[in-house]
Amino acid sequence: MVRLEDVRVVFVEPLFEINIGYVARAMKNFGLRRLYLVGPRTEVGDVALTYSVHAREIVREAVIVDTLAEAVEGVPYVVGTTGKAPKRDKRVVRIPITPEELAKNLVDYEGEVAILLGREDVGLRNEELAMCNVVVTIPASPEYPILNVSHAAAVIFYEIYKWNAGVARRAPFSFARATREDIALAEKYFDELAEALPIPEHKRRIAKLVFRRMLGRSLLSRRELYAIVGILRRASEAAQRATTKC
Amino acid sequence: MVRLEDVRVVFVEPLFEINIGYVARAMKNFGLRRLYLVGPRTEVGDVALTYSVHAREIVREAVIVDTLAEAVEGVPYVVGTTGKAPKRDKRVVRIPITPEELAKNLVDYEGEVAILLGREDVGLRNEELAMCNVVVTIPASPEYPILNVSHAAAVIFYEIYKWNAGVARRAPFSFARATREDIALAEKYFDELAEALPIPEHKRRIAKLVFRRMLGRSLLSRRELYAIVGILRRASEAAQRATTKC
Repeated sequence: MVRLEDVRVVFVEPLFEINIGYVARAMKNFGLRRLYLVGPRTEVGDVALTYSVHAREIVREAVIVDTLAEAVEGVPYVVGTTGKAPKRDKRVVRIPITPEELAKNLVDYEGEVAILLGREDVGLRNEELAMCNVVVTIPASPEYPILNVSHAAAVIFYEIYKWNAGVARRAPFSFARATREDIALAEKYFDELAEALPIPEHKRRIAKLVFRRMLGRSLLSRRELYAIVGILRRASEAAQRATTKC
Repeated sequence: MVRLEDVRVVFVEPLFEINIGYVARAMKNFGLRRLYLVGPRTEVGDVALTYSVHAREIVREAVIVDTLAEAVEGVPYVVGTTGKAPKRDKRVVRIPITPEELAKNLVDYEGEVAILLGREDVGLRNEELAMCNVVVTIPASPEYPILNVSHAAAVIFYEIYKWNAGVARRAPFSFARATREDIALAEKYFDELAEALPIPEHKRRIAKLVFRRMLGRSLLSRRELYAIVGILRRASEAAQRATTKC
């Protein structure tokens, strides 16, 4: 189970201080503590502190960095958020899961997690979403699906807290889940396999992304994962032999 | 099932305009429209309109009344909200359910519903809670369980919307999901790949099973699925070439 202290919230280029304060408050409401601000476009001062109410220490201790890369360095599970319905040609980047699905995933996860909150005006960019392990969208009215960033944050934090606290039903069986290292190994062999096959580069890129999503969503046990790793490793070897030797 | 247009939101003696705007926005985000303001302690003007963003009509059409009784007249199901843990002697008034439990209740309910939001400073009074059919508290960190009123509202509206839309049970986003035939194709190519590789039969069997599970759990879109199919088909060809030709 993910520990709430291992969850960092990364607010990308916030525009309004009030939202920084509200995000901090919502974090503390749901047991989160570690706030990163990437290139804030506003002062981070009294207004943020005021709106954080009893979460002032979260604002005060917020880590301010220049780039998103710095904010997520070394974090193996990065969660993007977007309120926008995916556009046709961008589907693969943005097929989202719900906050509930994210929360369920995290029940079986151990290690650090970064939750990215997008800019108030333009959200997260496609290339930022592409670097996420998973993208979350809150199911909302098609008429006006865009929540204020701090409200979206509250809903996502709430689901994580709820599931983490076991308020919702727990999974009855506990398997040794695949770790991030196990998963990285599966990703590596899949990538090697894709590289060795004669297919257009853009298809290769999409397939790699989809495979990551599959791994992210299907929460395999260690044993299950290594069954797949075995196939991928052999397949990669075979593909390399097929192209080089023959 | 409750109809979202039968849900009214009753904000009791709001103190800050900004919260009126945010509550209106959260309402529209989750398909609610009817806002009642009981004895607002603030102007309801430009600030509320600004923070409501695209939910201005909800602010403009808000019904302003003097008493809570007027706001809930004739409504058979009145829902109180409180962030406070029930005190020993007041338990009967305040034993709360969660937003999720409320949302589940409403799935089986037909008719009007009023959701009461308390004052920013003192919440709902005991006599107000006592007149509610049910009281909702959001599970939150014991260290700081009091959410901003609009954040609490967003979480409650979200659960109602989610359950109402059947999102909790069905996939909430409408992509062209992979059909059984699509999935069978992916399974076929994976099986062919596994057959072509030099691995023990029992490992092959397990891998096939795991791959079926991954497909089952990850709910790919058609487009995603075919990205994987492309790799598997090529990999299978390569594996066959590697073993037969060389």
